[in-house]
Amino acid sequence: MFLADDGLPVAVDAMGGDRAPEEIVAGAFEAAKSLGVGVLLVGEPSYLDSLGPCPGVEYLAATETVAMDEDPGRAVRQKRDSSLVRCAEAVHDGRASAMVSAGNTGAAMATAVLRMGRLPGVSRPAIATPIPVPGSTPTILIDAGANVECTPAMLVQFAQMGHALAVERYGMESPRVGLLSIGEEATKGNALVKEAHARLAAGAAGPQVNFIGNVEGRDVMSDRVDVVVTDGYTGNVVLKTLEGGVNWVVRAILEALNSTVEVKEAAKAIMPALLPMAGEVDPETTGGAVLLGVNGVCVISHGSSSARAIVNAIKVAHHAASEKLVQRVEAAISYRAEGEQA
Amino acid sequence: MFLADDGLPVAVDAMGGDRAPEEIVAGAFEAAKSLGVGVLLVGEPSYLDSLGPCPGVEYLAATETVAMDEDPGRAVRQKRDSSLVRCAEAVHDGRASAMVSAGNTGAAMATAVLRMGRLPGVSRPAIATPIPVPGSTPTILIDAGANVECTPAMLVQFAQMGHALAVERYGMESPRVGLLSIGEEATKGNALVKEAHARLAAGAAGPQVNFIGNVEGRDVMSDRVDVVVTDGYTGNVVLKTLEGGVNWVVRAILEALNSTVEVKEAAKAIMPALLPMAGEVDPETTGGAVLLGVNGVCVISHGSSSARAIVNAIKVAHHAASEKLVQRVEAAISYRAEGEQA
Repeated sequence: MFLADDGLPVAVDAMGGDRAPEEIVAGAFEAAKSLGVGVLLVGEPSYLDSLGPCPGVEYLAATETVAMDEDPGRAVRQKRDSSLVRCAEAVHDGRASAMVSAGNTGAAMATAVLRMGRLPGVSRPAIATPIPVPGSTPTILIDAGANVECTPAMLVQFAQMGHALAVERYGMESPRVGLLSIGEEATKGNALVKEAHARLAAGAAGPQVNFIGNVEGRDVMSDRVDVVVTDGYTGNVVLKTLEGGVNWVVRAILEALNSTVEVKEAAKAIMPALLPMAGEVDPETTGGAVLLGVNGVCVISHGSSSARAIVNAIKVAHHAASEKLVQRVEAAISYRAEGEQA
Repeated sequence: MFLADDGLPVAVDAMGGDRAPEEIVAGAFEAAKSLGVGVLLVGEPSYLDSLGPCPGVEYLAATETVAMDEDPGRAVRQKRDSSLVRCAEAVHDGRASAMVSAGNTGAAMATAVLRMGRLPGVSRPAIATPIPVPGSTPTILIDAGANVECTPAMLVQFAQMGHALAVERYGMESPRVGLLSIGEEATKGNALVKEAHARLAAGAAGPQVNFIGNVEGRDVMSDRVDVVVTDGYTGNVVLKTLEGGVNWVVRAILEALNSTVEVKEAAKAIMPALLPMAGEVDPETTGGAVLLGVNGVCVISHGSSSARAIVNAIKVAHHAASEKLVQRVEAAISYRAEGEQA
């Protein structure tokens, strides 16, 4: 069994997600088996008891469950023995190297911030979501929804944190960091974007951050940029717009290929050519979003996650812990912290 | 030849667009021939002279041309004899029923506002862009880029103007108007969206506007909403994100279908099933964006417009003039104007 350098398993919230607990548990078992990553499965004690032992998987009982539509703030304050809170505590207490949840995103964020704490100098933690780009590494979109109102200083920190994630996850030496706007020129965009552009262009994110200027919506799903920085409102709109648009096209194609007997027959021959592409745009293969800026690794998988998505999320969480994502984010952020003290 | 009720042709900017003047002229000629819509073609005199007469097409000379990347404000102030400015003047002077340009979007907007003027009570004109939704009428996205900074009152007017356009163009009785946000609940979104939601829910847009609440990015390319209201920064990001995402998927599919001899052969059989779909998502068939809130019909076609796109843009402009789009917008806007005076 491969554990992170510190020998710790990945904590998995068995009760969070539209398809919990069955798909989550199946993913956790599969990760322990095929990836050899140790898992700390956190969930209802009676349910865990019914599972029986699995090599590489430890159990941790939590008597409460946070519902998908529950108010995040209240859930975290009131459900102290929930699987979500216990996962974050396991990371904070040094019992797990990282946590994975496919549950209530707002509650997962709030829990991670409260139980793990922010990293020194971080103004606001942000969600970094990988957008699949077939034939290339995914584009990291940050912030994908944690902070609907942002300041230019926050966007500068998102650039630093996104840089750190791209270096950790994809092994890039100098990921291209772009600022989402409505034109490439520095003068394009709203007041927030224009001020953030000026600061990033002046090197506010530090010499290691490769700021390539403004990028546009059409660049998100392309190989022209590695990290796209934006406020959480715009980021969330972009994420859901792409999800809707791409899903629509894929669905329409499958319907068209199912229209007549002749087409169906011919479609059989072309499916082997289309399937790899479908796999590449499938968000389940990218391994989920990461909450950056907290003092621990927190991977938030899509609410509809299947066992396969959970395996990928555990893989990503394990890699982040082993490759010291938190320390990398802390180091990237420290540039600005020093600048501010001066 | 069909002219609008007032017997006027549609003014077409022959010199604007990446593929001008050839594709623009081809589209104008085709529109006059196949749609029977009268066209006033505005362009360089020597070029127009070289074309020779065409039934249903009149020529109007303009010695200057606004470049695609020219500063909009300066172009409008300095190039008074440009094809763009002459088109807007033709509408203002009652020589044309509407104008169509595939040129510099910012300059087209500025020209239309300056030469046609704003409608009474309109705070800011906005761009309404139809997003293709196969199997359904397009979704109207307003504002798609005219105003990067918006107030809640502006969003209320966008709802009114978008409503008027959906009624005019698609003959809808009660188009569903949604506010773009990051969740369906009234409490979701940034400060601008939350305040706009409160006003729209309280009926600020008038009893005729069917406000269905917040919608999300994934709803834009769906048949769940007819008009999506947002600020011009977010709207432009959404537009370009969809363009990029959908284009990517379509390109990847075509590449996959071209990969091996067997697949190529099978692809021939399925193309007839796929092509209608490709046509439906093609922005060229939707007829271009409209600048709403000015005292005249101004259709702004995509910069890369082909002759076919221009034919559709002329069709849309002619319909808007015949169906009294401007009066409809004025009537929709007047609700708020009265409320404000009270």
